[in-house]
Amino acid sequence: MSLSSSPSVTLLEVAPRDGFQSIAVPLPTELKVSIIEDLVASGVTRMELGSFVSPKAIPQMADMAAIAAHFKGREGCRMSVLVPNAKGASMALQAGYRDLVFVVSVSEAHNLNNVRQTVAQSLDQLRAIVSEAGHSGEGLRVDLATAFDCPFEGAVALDSVGRVFSEALDIAPKAEFALCDTTGRADPLTVRHRFQRMMELASPQTVWAFHGHDTFGMGVANALYAFDAGVTIIESAAAGLGGCPFAPGATGNTATEDLQFAFEEGGIATGIDRGKLLAAADRIAALPGGKTASHLRIVPRERAMA
Amino acid sequence: MSLSSSPSVTLLEVAPRDGFQSIAVPLPTELKVSIIEDLVASGVTRMELGSFVSPKAIPQMADMAAIAAHFKGREGCRMSVLVPNAKGASMALQAGYRDLVFVVSVSEAHNLNNVRQTVAQSLDQLRAIVSEAGHSGEGLRVDLATAFDCPFEGAVALDSVGRVFSEALDIAPKAEFALCDTTGRADPLTVRHRFQRMMELASPQTVWAFHGHDTFGMGVANALYAFDAGVTIIESAAAGLGGCPFAPGATGNTATEDLQFAFEEGGIATGIDRGKLLAAADRIAALPGGKTASHLRIVPRERAMA
Repeated sequence: MSLSSSPSVTLLEVAPRDGFQSIAVPLPTELKVSIIEDLVASGVTRMELGSFVSPKAIPQMADMAAIAAHFKGREGCRMSVLVPNAKGASMALQAGYRDLVFVVSVSEAHNLNNVRQTVAQSLDQLRAIVSEAGHSGEGLRVDLATAFDCPFEGAVALDSVGRVFSEALDIAPKAEFALCDTTGRADPLTVRHRFQRMMELASPQTVWAFHGHDTFGMGVANALYAFDAGVTIIESAAAGLGGCPFAPGATGNTATEDLQFAFEEGGIATGIDRGKLLAAADRIAALPGGKTASHLRIVPRERAMA
Repeated sequence: MSLSSSPSVTLLEVAPRDGFQSIAVPLPTELKVSIIEDLVASGVTRMELGSFVSPKAIPQMADMAAIAAHFKGREGCRMSVLVPNAKGASMALQAGYRDLVFVVSVSEAHNLNNVRQTVAQSLDQLRAIVSEAGHSGEGLRVDLATAFDCPFEGAVALDSVGRVFSEALDIAPKAEFALCDTTGRADPLTVRHRFQRMMELASPQTVWAFHGHDTFGMGVANALYAFDAGVTIIESAAAGLGGCPFAPGATGNTATEDLQFAFEEGGIATGIDRGKLLAAADRIAALPGGKTASHLRIVPRERAMA
């Protein structure tokens, strides 16, 4: 896959954000912190801790400032938070977070549903965030949601992805960018192809991430094909915590332990200890009301190990 | 993936063999035939109908001759049967089957457990089959089981695969060959690498197949990476029927509908109608005692469709 003699990939853990918000009753802050500590101890070097959104909309994320206070000054794991608008970004910066994830959907219907703004309004919010911060996107990732498929509009055209990406790149040329398979319906060859096309529009310095779900069974393959295109950051959730409100029986983010297995067994280092990760995933799977989807976690543990 | 302008792959359906044998109580022959007919009608062009083994060992396969009688002279779908030894091959040929699959494991422990022979004894059986038929392996596929991992011995060395393959190739140079991920523990990059290495030992004319399970969540990715190496035949089971006796909660063969989706959405033709395949998979999933594992089948049907 890589020309390097010791290839590696970064698995960016999103269980505390995309996963915890899927659990109906907010978890105690101390429990969240304890699970996050376990994930850090397993070797996770990047994590999305939560979202700065209205506590009325997502009460599961009301304790972001308290979590920030706990991890203040912590080295070794870059901890980011998702912000849907400039107000959320200000709140996150006030709470001490320096690593922000701004989300905008490629499809109008999903963006309206997700952040109650048109795509153009969201891009204005991105402009405001960059302008207020006085930088070109450093410390910022832009998540392009529904970059393949939209739960409301269906297939999303490649041209639409290119258009939103180009505008966002213009606003924040130093940001990281992610193509997000929000619904899990993307297929591996299309994932690789879309990243290749976006990379042609981007600077060679642009760092890319892929956010995927395993709903249609493509999770592991999509991650590998994204990596094959040159994507170095793959988002996943320990235990596959998540669930998908529009698809009965569907699953959450691709399980971190499944990806750790896929990459490490293939000789691509993740820096994550599989046993410790599986132990953390076990704790997550035991959370009341959590819907999980993992393969590695349910095979006999000695068979899952390297 | 392919240099051809219209790439295609053959999904070889194994639910009637690897799947039906996993259901404790033998199914009525008419029910089997009816499901097989549905699979053929969906566009399946190759299918493994069952095994010529002792009815005492696997009573689910006692009606192979009756099934052969039903499909005698049928065009459009190549129907093969698995044989563990020369006696099984004779019985299959007597029943009118011309397309045989001979199975030998790379690992001694699995071969002893599976067919009660050493690897050397199994290769002698292969020699007898080819010798009695007076050909060089035409109409024969050799399945190399445990080509990656063995439920008893663990990791299987690449050199061992090469040794068994080379001997089998010497005996049946015109046969098709399959590397089988019997336990589902193979990872995508290793799958691709092992096929590439075996292809170096083979004739350029050798046709290759991959047999995989989704137990560790690698099923779709393994199939795509096998295809990427040049494998043109991918085995799978509608509804993911199967199960794995040594791994609690584990799954069967990778679901045909998941692979149909992965290939077709990526522009690689399978010739299989997704809606008809899903309808057949629904029937299989409804079989009493059947353990299934499919992603496409459980998402809302309109979302699964192209």
